[in-house]
Amino acid sequence: MNPVTPTQQRDLVCSTPLFTDLYQLTMMQGYFLQGMHTQEATFDLYYRRQPYSGGFAVWAGLEPALDYLGHLSFSRADLDYLASLQLFRPEFLEALGGWRFSGTVTAFREGRIVFPHVPLLSVTAPLWEAQLVETALLNTLNFQTLVATKAARCVIAAASSPHGGEVVEFGARRAQGPNGALSAARAAFVGGATATSNVEAGLRYGLPLSGTHAHAWVQSFGSELEAFRAYADAYPDSTVLLLDTVDTLKSGLVNALTVARELREKGHELRGVRLDSGDLVYLSRRVRAGLDAAGFPDVKIIASNDLDEQVIASVIAEGGRIDVYGVGTQLATAGGEGGGALGGVYKLAALNGEPKMKLTGDPVKSNVPGVKRVWRGRDREGTVTFDVMTLGEMPKEGDLVSDPTNPLKHTHLPALEWEDAREVVMRDGQRVHPADDLPTIQARARAEALQLQEGTLRLLNPHQYKVSIGQDVADLRDRTVRDIRADQVGS
Amino acid sequence: MNPVTPTQQRDLVCSTPLFTDLYQLTMMQGYFLQGMHTQEATFDLYYRRQPYSGGFAVWAGLEPALDYLGHLSFSRADLDYLASLQLFRPEFLEALGGWRFSGTVTAFREGRIVFPHVPLLSVTAPLWEAQLVETALLNTLNFQTLVATKAARCVIAAASSPHGGEVVEFGARRAQGPNGALSAARAAFVGGATATSNVEAGLRYGLPLSGTHAHAWVQSFGSELEAFRAYADAYPDSTVLLLDTVDTLKSGLVNALTVARELREKGHELRGVRLDSGDLVYLSRRVRAGLDAAGFPDVKIIASNDLDEQVIASVIAEGGRIDVYGVGTQLATAGGEGGGALGGVYKLAALNGEPKMKLTGDPVKSNVPGVKRVWRGRDREGTVTFDVMTLGEMPKEGDLVSDPTNPLKHTHLPALEWEDAREVVMRDGQRVHPADDLPTIQARARAEALQLQEGTLRLLNPHQYKVSIGQDVADLRDRTVRDIRADQVGS
Repeated sequence: MNPVTPTQQRDLVCSTPLFTDLYQLTMMQGYFLQGMHTQEATFDLYYRRQPYSGGFAVWAGLEPALDYLGHLSFSRADLDYLASLQLFRPEFLEALGGWRFSGTVTAFREGRIVFPHVPLLSVTAPLWEAQLVETALLNTLNFQTLVATKAARCVIAAASSPHGGEVVEFGARRAQGPNGALSAARAAFVGGATATSNVEAGLRYGLPLSGTHAHAWVQSFGSELEAFRAYADAYPDSTVLLLDTVDTLKSGLVNALTVARELREKGHELRGVRLDSGDLVYLSRRVRAGLDAAGFPDVKIIASNDLDEQVIASVIAEGGRIDVYGVGTQLATAGGEGGGALGGVYKLAALNGEPKMKLTGDPVKSNVPGVKRVWRGRDREGTVTFDVMTLGEMPKEGDLVSDPTNPLKHTHLPALEWEDAREVVMRDGQRVHPADDLPTIQARARAEALQLQEGTLRLLNPHQYKVSIGQDVADLRDRTVRDIRADQVGS
Repeated sequence: MNPVTPTQQRDLVCSTPLFTDLYQLTMMQGYFLQGMHTQEATFDLYYRRQPYSGGFAVWAGLEPALDYLGHLSFSRADLDYLASLQLFRPEFLEALGGWRFSGTVTAFREGRIVFPHVPLLSVTAPLWEAQLVETALLNTLNFQTLVATKAARCVIAAASSPHGGEVVEFGARRAQGPNGALSAARAAFVGGATATSNVEAGLRYGLPLSGTHAHAWVQSFGSELEAFRAYADAYPDSTVLLLDTVDTLKSGLVNALTVARELREKGHELRGVRLDSGDLVYLSRRVRAGLDAAGFPDVKIIASNDLDEQVIASVIAEGGRIDVYGVGTQLATAGGEGGGALGGVYKLAALNGEPKMKLTGDPVKSNVPGVKRVWRGRDREGTVTFDVMTLGEMPKEGDLVSDPTNPLKHTHLPALEWEDAREVVMRDGQRVHPADDLPTIQARARAEALQLQEGTLRLLNPHQYKVSIGQDVADLRDRTVRDIRADQVGS
């Protein structure tokens, strides 16, 4: 809420190549010793289940992921450490000395709305390069996508009020590690949060900051009124008073009104009040009425205390009058049903021009082989309705397409306007575009969310967006399965 | 599992003072403008509910927290950023230029077993110093304690097998941000995990590393057998083969036995096999029987695939034969009931020698006022049974003590041996001891866990350890409540 001059975007990248699972490095050496390391591989990054049992996700973390890819190299200390593990041969470690990521990345631009089983990002690179980066890509993209989606869900809930409402991110103290907090602040903004309480996130990402004061402030003074006055003295134009240190209505509201009147006499206005405990519906209605009756209709009511999208929706449904929702733990840790982790995966889809897939007893866990293009279809009203993967060609009306995990579910495509939904964002290890800034990414997410069928955004039991594979991909998959089975029989 | 030469302990500290909530900085300036910033404050850090509905927690993150406190200062860039927010006055920013943490910290040493409502760490410092550090202390200690506790629960579950079993941390790709992954790897080790897959965590913390290979390795070769042979060639003494790329029993096990025989002919032994899907009970029994029958009883079975303490316990209860549990998502994100975030808080307990508390309608959310000492009682057998807070004196047999949140629950103390359970770990901003190393911390956790009543470690419906306040603390609280009420009436 405090406007911030964006400063340099120091990016959140764990820029060491050692931020990876050990097996990536042992496999790299294995490929190297086999002379296979430079074979051209394509890996697809996707997830299988919509987080929070919802109908959509907001794709986030791409820009930090590209920064990571663009800056990766092994330092002398990294190589010394690897040597100390007694797993790696000198010729391999020497080769790592000059190692850089030289691959091509095709991806949805950050902020787009995305769906399960669709490759959100594909890496085409020499096998040992594509293999190393799996862990960090998944770590960054899984978590930021999850938090951006959670934030969008909170924003959708807040927007259901006839009086409007915004969402700010307050979770630093409960986040999973310091950079968990920084990633969460960034991703929450992508998903539509308007500010964060995390000052370092403000500095790194140019995010607007938001803050009030804590109970300790009130406790540190002889009385609540004295504490409120001192805060208003220090911040005459940006004071938000926390009402519940003693008693929200009998003490907090009364003292806040006193201070609001004193500020007005001096030509200032109280910015807001904060509720942090108790029945938020009852208290927010009483506080709103008290503020309005005293002539302060513009004083905002900010609420915190274990909020999430469900609590926000229920507070609004019951007539609560909250203007700003400070969402902490549940946003910064992406809590809730199926929350905490997005099960994104990164699977080999092609090697040396050959399609690759992992067979398994459970078809949901098989990947779709081949180098694919992702097409997004819009109807005449511009409503986004369909993602289709093909081996290249644009889908057309009447094409038979099928569910990515169940060939028995198929349909003929209606007439739609098709967009090649992903772009080459990195070529030969170099970014193709300058990095998108966060307001652009946030606006992209918002704009595309508004193009979805309304039911897709529903928080509970949403409409399920259609994702399909074209006949060419289905045929390739059938051939690949047959070939793998034949190889196994022959082996 | 691969022994690692510990290298320098580059510590995980978000060492910028801007890693804090905005309101900490606005309150600091408020105290500064009131001339209150140097008043001596004591804040207590504690949590209210046992994570995972369990009976204990493993205290973790203290050493990184002390590193953070010891290295905190505002850089020129930090101050320029704060100035750009148009909230802070030049005289305050100038004062921040020379700001250091000069406080005293009293805490449980890292790795000790801890319980709700007990101050685990208390900061006594000038008010503006103690206030700033709240966010980072909570962030680090909340998350690491939560993960260490989760790891300990997994280790307890694994130890319930008559064949033993160890736990390794595999969660980097699903962790909440890169440092979420690093913090989790460190904390998992504190809680008893024996290794991590995260190479950077190995480097930073000297942790043993563990790894196998991925499905992509098998897919990259013409056949599974070829892939297994190539891996065994590269790592003749440390090969672990992933069995489920094609079919665990019909293909994976058969090919692994072939490679195990070939390795043995060359004077090496296959280290292990990994199961990553399917019915782990059935498959592990079949694979164990197959390995044993073929003369490979020492080949370990490693399992992964969405494990947690409940899955581990149920696999063992049904006769599964797994030697190493690779726990990923649920460990790195501290998933499960009440998981994802530990609700640790940091509350003002005294200012300028006066006790302080936050009143609230809900007694569970009130803090215990005053500067307290924490005593831990052991019975004649050495079993840890009781934590008691007093204002200083050692408890003695027959003392009346009461529940921290419910004065109606009280008891007379039995005869116990009392230990002053916390130590001054930082005085005037300087560490008192050299940092504990991680093996020491891990051993401390393990040793104290073994001193608890057995039921306290139970995963479901555990025995609830007793935490109490002495009569002196109870009397102080009563006086403090009366004084606050009187002040409010008088205000």
